[in-house]
Amino acid sequence: MREITGFKNGVYAPVNDITIPVDNIGVNRGYGAFDFFGVINNKPFFLNRHLDRFFRSLELLRLKIDFSRQQVEAYIEEVIKQNNTGDFFMKLFAIPLNSDTAPSLNCGFYIVPVSFMPFGKEIYVNGCSLITKEYERFAPEAKSTNYLPLIYWHNEICTAGAIDVLYHSNGTIKETSRGNIFIVKNNIVSTPGSDILRGISRSIVIDIAKSANLRVKEKPVSLDELFTSDEVFLTSTTKKVLPVVKIDGKTIYSGLVGPVTKMLMNEFDKLREQCRNN
Amino acid sequence: MREITGFKNGVYAPVNDITIPVDNIGVNRGYGAFDFFGVINNKPFFLNRHLDRFFRSLELLRLKIDFSRQQVEAYIEEVIKQNNTGDFFMKLFAIPLNSDTAPSLNCGFYIVPVSFMPFGKEIYVNGCSLITKEYERFAPEAKSTNYLPLIYWHNEICTAGAIDVLYHSNGTIKETSRGNIFIVKNNIVSTPGSDILRGISRSIVIDIAKSANLRVKEKPVSLDELFTSDEVFLTSTTKKVLPVVKIDGKTIYSGLVGPVTKMLMNEFDKLREQCRNN
Repeated sequence: MREITGFKNGVYAPVNDITIPVDNIGVNRGYGAFDFFGVINNKPFFLNRHLDRFFRSLELLRLKIDFSRQQVEAYIEEVIKQNNTGDFFMKLFAIPLNSDTAPSLNCGFYIVPVSFMPFGKEIYVNGCSLITKEYERFAPEAKSTNYLPLIYWHNEICTAGAIDVLYHSNGTIKETSRGNIFIVKNNIVSTPGSDILRGISRSIVIDIAKSANLRVKEKPVSLDELFTSDEVFLTSTTKKVLPVVKIDGKTIYSGLVGPVTKMLMNEFDKLREQCRNN
Repeated sequence: MREITGFKNGVYAPVNDITIPVDNIGVNRGYGAFDFFGVINNKPFFLNRHLDRFFRSLELLRLKIDFSRQQVEAYIEEVIKQNNTGDFFMKLFAIPLNSDTAPSLNCGFYIVPVSFMPFGKEIYVNGCSLITKEYERFAPEAKSTNYLPLIYWHNEICTAGAIDVLYHSNGTIKETSRGNIFIVKNNIVSTPGSDILRGISRSIVIDIAKSANLRVKEKPVSLDELFTSDEVFLTSTTKKVLPVVKIDGKTIYSGLVGPVTKMLMNEFDKLREQCRNN
């Protein structure tokens, strides 16, 4: 297997050499910021939005890296060039370098390219299942490295034949462990607007829906509204726009992928193709 | 500075060489188990109880290490011997070795000795302050590496002159970020009995209180009960039995360290001295 090159806080290095001392806050206290984006034909997909969010996560978590946004962009470009593997994903990490807990935490900044097997076509044709759990992510607007509940519930998700877990709290749905949730009812597209991580795919889908003259509401969505929707779908960097047809074993509407979801999937894929061919 | 020797999943190694790949679940997903105990005069303090809890955390988090309890004990003994630094602390870690999410997660097992400056005498004479936050640890009975809220609130804790944050949820207090909480009212000692990490110092203090013929109740404790207590104290491996005289800026009772707390502090220290001199 070809060695993958990443960026290790100032130097390009094989990704296997990018390690964190076990006693640092990044491991010992599970504290750090993270972002994740797609690279299509060696071009990052909506990089600006991802970097906006990454730097926002740093701010929310009081993390400091030694590099400006411009430098981060240049390092990402160089990592893509050095690997030249066409379609893949990139992880950005800011992980505290030591174990003190000063007002701001000095971080190592790391870029890690990862390959990821795309989901099969069937799941986009037939839709996927979710399970739900009462939970709300801590400091939800920051993309922290805290995914304890996801890994904790992983077996239960798999056993249920679900693709992810949808979190809800006080009767309203929030987000999935790694994505955002949308419902469609009477041609109105709704998605939770607060106490969530604002996904980049989420923002792209909102743009597409508005361009298509659909009404989009960012508002609290109750569990009742979820289960009585005409259509449900989720968005994420790896899953793109993914139709949801079953939640906690209950079929949503007809159990088939709805027309609004189909349109959004189609337009989203067009943007990816534009990125590829530009 | 003398090099500190730890244990790195099968080999003794300098602690600085004990690292985790950034892309592993231990960093990327903040998933792992942890324990922490004191070593007094090269002898671990209540090791059996700590190991009971460590192996229970592994079970709750579906983590597997390659070593039996007997082996773990032998490795701890050898790490203590190789360092021979008298009084210090030890961290045990089980961190997933790779990024898949199989039914059980194969972990690296690590032993990391750490030094820690003891708290000054004054805080035991005058008592400490806490702030409170609405929060409940996820999978609270497992000592996971998820301390996101603690680090997130660290500045606020410091600014308030507090030593830690006390979590409460649905009107009842739970635990501090790294310790357990007790109240005393009319000579009855009460402490939350569920949805918490059962601290080893907590269990020792319960034993001491019962031996002293005090009534001990493990039961839900409301915020009201907390603020109208005669005495409040917390327990932890580094803080031992620490009197709390102020919470959210409000003075508890007279603002002085109470007699039950004093007795428990004293008896706890006796057990530490027994460990030292045995």
